[in-house]
Amino acid sequence: MTQRIRGVVAPVLTPFKADLSPDRERFIAHCKWLLSQNCGLAVFGTTSEANSLAAEERSILLDALVAAGVDTSRMMPGTGCCSITETVKLTAQAVKHGCAGVLMLPPFYYKSVSEEGLYRYFSEVVQRVGDARLKIYLYHIPPVAVIGITTGLVERLLAAYPNAIAGMKDSSGDWNNTKTFLDAFNVRAGRAVSLGARRSSDPGTDTQTSFDVFVGSESFLLANMRNGGAGTISATANVNPAAIHKLYAESGKLKTESGKRKTQRTDHDLEGLQAKLNVVRDLFGRYPMIAALKQAIAICANDPAWRTVRPPLVELTAEQVKTLAAELNTIGFKMG
Amino acid sequence: MTQRIRGVVAPVLTPFKADLSPDRERFIAHCKWLLSQNCGLAVFGTTSEANSLAAEERSILLDALVAAGVDTSRMMPGTGCCSITETVKLTAQAVKHGCAGVLMLPPFYYKSVSEEGLYRYFSEVVQRVGDARLKIYLYHIPPVAVIGITTGLVERLLAAYPNAIAGMKDSSGDWNNTKTFLDAFNVRAGRAVSLGARRSSDPGTDTQTSFDVFVGSESFLLANMRNGGAGTISATANVNPAAIHKLYAESGKLKTESGKRKTQRTDHDLEGLQAKLNVVRDLFGRYPMIAALKQAIAICANDPAWRTVRPPLVELTAEQVKTLAAELNTIGFKMG
Repeated sequence: MTQRIRGVVAPVLTPFKADLSPDRERFIAHCKWLLSQNCGLAVFGTTSEANSLAAEERSILLDALVAAGVDTSRMMPGTGCCSITETVKLTAQAVKHGCAGVLMLPPFYYKSVSEEGLYRYFSEVVQRVGDARLKIYLYHIPPVAVIGITTGLVERLLAAYPNAIAGMKDSSGDWNNTKTFLDAFNVRAGRAVSLGARRSSDPGTDTQTSFDVFVGSESFLLANMRNGGAGTISATANVNPAAIHKLYAESGKLKTESGKRKTQRTDHDLEGLQAKLNVVRDLFGRYPMIAALKQAIAICANDPAWRTVRPPLVELTAEQVKTLAAELNTIGFKMG
Repeated sequence: MTQRIRGVVAPVLTPFKADLSPDRERFIAHCKWLLSQNCGLAVFGTTSEANSLAAEERSILLDALVAAGVDTSRMMPGTGCCSITETVKLTAQAVKHGCAGVLMLPPFYYKSVSEEGLYRYFSEVVQRVGDARLKIYLYHIPPVAVIGITTGLVERLLAAYPNAIAGMKDSSGDWNNTKTFLDAFNVRAGRAVSLGARRSSDPGTDTQTSFDVFVGSESFLLANMRNGGAGTISATANVNPAAIHKLYAESGKLKTESGKRKTQRTDHDLEGLQAKLNVVRDLFGRYPMIAALKQAIAICANDPAWRTVRPPLVELTAEQVKTLAAELNTIGFKMG
């Protein structure tokens, strides 16, 4: 049984060349740098502009990462497309490469779809991939995908596929929603899952049955870790991974060292780390996030090529670039 | 210069086999039947579950239709994907096959995108396809795609690409919105387009500069034709094409025979035809539309295989099937 991926994971920004084709060299270099910062790789997430890439482009980039020796046990590629066929193809490729998991959007074109329809979709994907190594992290991001992941859906999927359904990323931006999922499904080591009948259709053999909840923003990281969460998959981890990892690591120590919170002082320290993260997150939140993160790398690495985004996104305006640079300077921001 | 496509067009339902793969034989047969009913073919529309198909599956099906001798001059395939790369590939294929046009969704994953970003997206597609035969019908369906087509966007695109931007399908369900586009952009034969500067970057040489507005439901067909519209691209055309075409043809006669409305009586006749169409449309509108249309074909053609939909859609329940059959019977519905 391989170790589940936990901690800080970046939905890796995808650099583009001037002709809008993916820039493999910069992409691989950025992935390697993130790994060096204790940051896992959710390549092909929303922040990655993955939905502005053809399925085939994602497939080629994943092969390129593997060929470059990037550690797939720290990788959770986004594989959720609108069609079962494309989702299955990308997911099977990720599993074959030994990726720690896949981050899976629900099919997001048709609206007002039923829980039954979404259940059938994910069920069909699990069955078609048919590999015991499959670990799906359901991706809840209603502000963008509109179609969301409900507790009812997770309950049905966990009952049918307790090993394949490994967790979720909650990008609702609503802590109460995260808390609802943590309370309903989070299972710590040694505790049995208190769900109903498990069907034998699951191709998995893994007996680790926790449902790992990642928050979609490090703003909720401390709250998530205090409530048994697994970490964060956050856009800003592309530029601020070390500080986010520090909070993750420190909050983990509390639990492992004593089994209960140590002192008020330590809690206070953690809150200080969280507050510092929030300053950076809030700064980027005042801009179109993806363009601003790419611009920040362009500034910090003195590499203007990083600015490029694919339409329908647009890069920051000259005025925004100026303000962003000044704001980063004011808080003494450095990548790392 | 080829004739623009006008009239009644069906977003062709895609039949699936039990294993959810596209059923080519039934698909080709349905396309040929629709053509025999004076109905054009917007294959790969929303009603076609095209967004539950891989780009590659659409590509293979289009080739299969062409190989089967289906008339591409009556065809307007849906080619709009989230990525420029896939949209360009499918669009270029349609143009190469001599399709009358393509129905193009805006990229629909990222939300709150700017008009500038959408302009760049469509502009990039036109430039990359780079073929004077390209005719794009912009697809406005905010209830599903969320991202919509604005008058500002159309104005910019028409100014840059007067030949490639041929019209739109308005599935907003809001007649006021359709009227706004008709008033702003519809140009009858012989009238020049009263827009600003035309850029020379358009690869087209076609001097026909009308902007053809199709309504997304035949409920608005008479209103559209009275206001200079081009026809309708409507889901229900899959099962009720002859009656919808009759209203289209009759409303056209009014214009060509006299140049103004003939008599109150004729207007009254047209309204009668519209009212009859509305009865059928409203009936299907009370069910999940796509599943209900497939079920209606299954009933009328005594071919249960037609029921199948791809997740996340679900077929009608047994109870819904019973009610639908009874309701169709009550209005004496027959396909045709």
